[in-house]
Amino acid sequence: MKSPNIGVFDSGFGGLTVLNALLRHIPHASYTFLGDTARLPYGSKSRRTIAHYAAEAAQFLVNQQGAEYLVIACNTASALALDAIQEAVPVPVLGVVEPGAIAAKSASTTGDVLVIATAATVQSHAYAIACRAQGLRALEKACPLLVPLVEEGWTTHPVTAQVIDVYLSELRAEAQAEGLKYDTLVLGCTHYPLIRPLLEQAVTTGVRVIDSAEATAETAAHLFGQNNPQAETAQPNPARIRCFATDSTDKFERLGSRFLGRPTGKVELVDLGG
Amino acid sequence: MKSPNIGVFDSGFGGLTVLNALLRHIPHASYTFLGDTARLPYGSKSRRTIAHYAAEAAQFLVNQQGAEYLVIACNTASALALDAIQEAVPVPVLGVVEPGAIAAKSASTTGDVLVIATAATVQSHAYAIACRAQGLRALEKACPLLVPLVEEGWTTHPVTAQVIDVYLSELRAEAQAEGLKYDTLVLGCTHYPLIRPLLEQAVTTGVRVIDSAEATAETAAHLFGQNNPQAETAQPNPARIRCFATDSTDKFERLGSRFLGRPTGKVELVDLGG
Repeated sequence: MKSPNIGVFDSGFGGLTVLNALLRHIPHASYTFLGDTARLPYGSKSRRTIAHYAAEAAQFLVNQQGAEYLVIACNTASALALDAIQEAVPVPVLGVVEPGAIAAKSASTTGDVLVIATAATVQSHAYAIACRAQGLRALEKACPLLVPLVEEGWTTHPVTAQVIDVYLSELRAEAQAEGLKYDTLVLGCTHYPLIRPLLEQAVTTGVRVIDSAEATAETAAHLFGQNNPQAETAQPNPARIRCFATDSTDKFERLGSRFLGRPTGKVELVDLGG
Repeated sequence: MKSPNIGVFDSGFGGLTVLNALLRHIPHASYTFLGDTARLPYGSKSRRTIAHYAAEAAQFLVNQQGAEYLVIACNTASALALDAIQEAVPVPVLGVVEPGAIAAKSASTTGDVLVIATAATVQSHAYAIACRAQGLRALEKACPLLVPLVEEGWTTHPVTAQVIDVYLSELRAEAQAEGLKYDTLVLGCTHYPLIRPLLEQAVTTGVRVIDSAEATAETAAHLFGQNNPQAETAQPNPARIRCFATDSTDKFERLGSRFLGRPTGKVELVDLGG
């Protein structure tokens, strides 16, 4: 049985939550993760620049690391550069946005969903567009403080619970004003799985929380993982995860293990130029 | 009387608080502000990369915009690239770190000071080194949540007050453990002037708050502004402020006016390469 070689790309290390989910769903695969930390955040850059950076990263994973499949574990790159990446490499490419929207479609009975994400992802309206393609109405809300709170390690801190309450209260008021009968909340940022317990506590009873990272790993298991009947039970081989970053690996190594759910190991520095 | 042409440089738009202070201290000058927003944050990049970016920015301000003086309104660039900038351009260059340390020296009677800043600035120990050169002992504390809270506009929000309390409590405990008799708190980040009222409320009675942005403008007035006897009373000419950014000017225009204390006007896009 062939073990697939899966490349996972993010602008930073938040996408390690997607790798975490992939390891659970396709445990027999080999993984190469690349965080383009030298050039983050992608969110403030133009579509052309992001497409250029993401294509370079994809080519590194495929041409130099032998990836046979790519998961774009970055909402901004998924939203703005998926086409450019697909053109740049000859392997199947999966982003995080569409799987999140498909999972929301399965979860929602009312057809109205809420999405929380970074300012850049919301500004792209990638989730609203992907949800509309699934026949859903989506209301998106930028929550810029949640990423820094997660990176500060305040994943169970009362301040984080308060910030979540502020954002969700505003979102509920907006949803009410627009007449949305929502029953699903989509986590449209790779950092949010770390505060999923606080978010589950904060949502109204009956609202289902959908995690894009988890949804993406499930989709990847269907698309790339067909040869593995014992997924979910097999133990991943930690030696089969290699992590690369384009600058300053110390923050990556320090925080990454929390996102990955296990040590990242030594993060290797790679120069993509720029 | 000649009106000086002063270039002000930051990796983002936080340095507009320094320009705000400069406008009060040298109101008759012309100003050209450059935010290298395409390549921020500098804090996660190597010294070599930061020196390269900052030198390019300085050359743009001097060679293309005719700046006769430069203020580096960026703690990271001041800490890591002041020498490189001074070598790159033939005009006087002033950073924000040394003026902050000199102002702390004037304020402190015990000789022990606390410094709060971003993680990158603290990691560089630029303030500790500059304070030591002034005969002060400094204890530095990274406060990574304060910049996102300011950028979210929560400058008077109870959550921000709580976050400040958490950070200052930790800092007080560390100071006590090290036996520091501090009487001064230095704000070592250009975003912090916007939450100065909350910080003033949070410090122990008798502790003086020193703002690096203000201290830098005072020093600049001494060094560059000698020809202007009516500083502080003269009205600045808003037409004499030009703002440039290297990418996506919308966040700059939206948030910048809060930092500058007046509208930034149209922000012009400039391509420095990279």
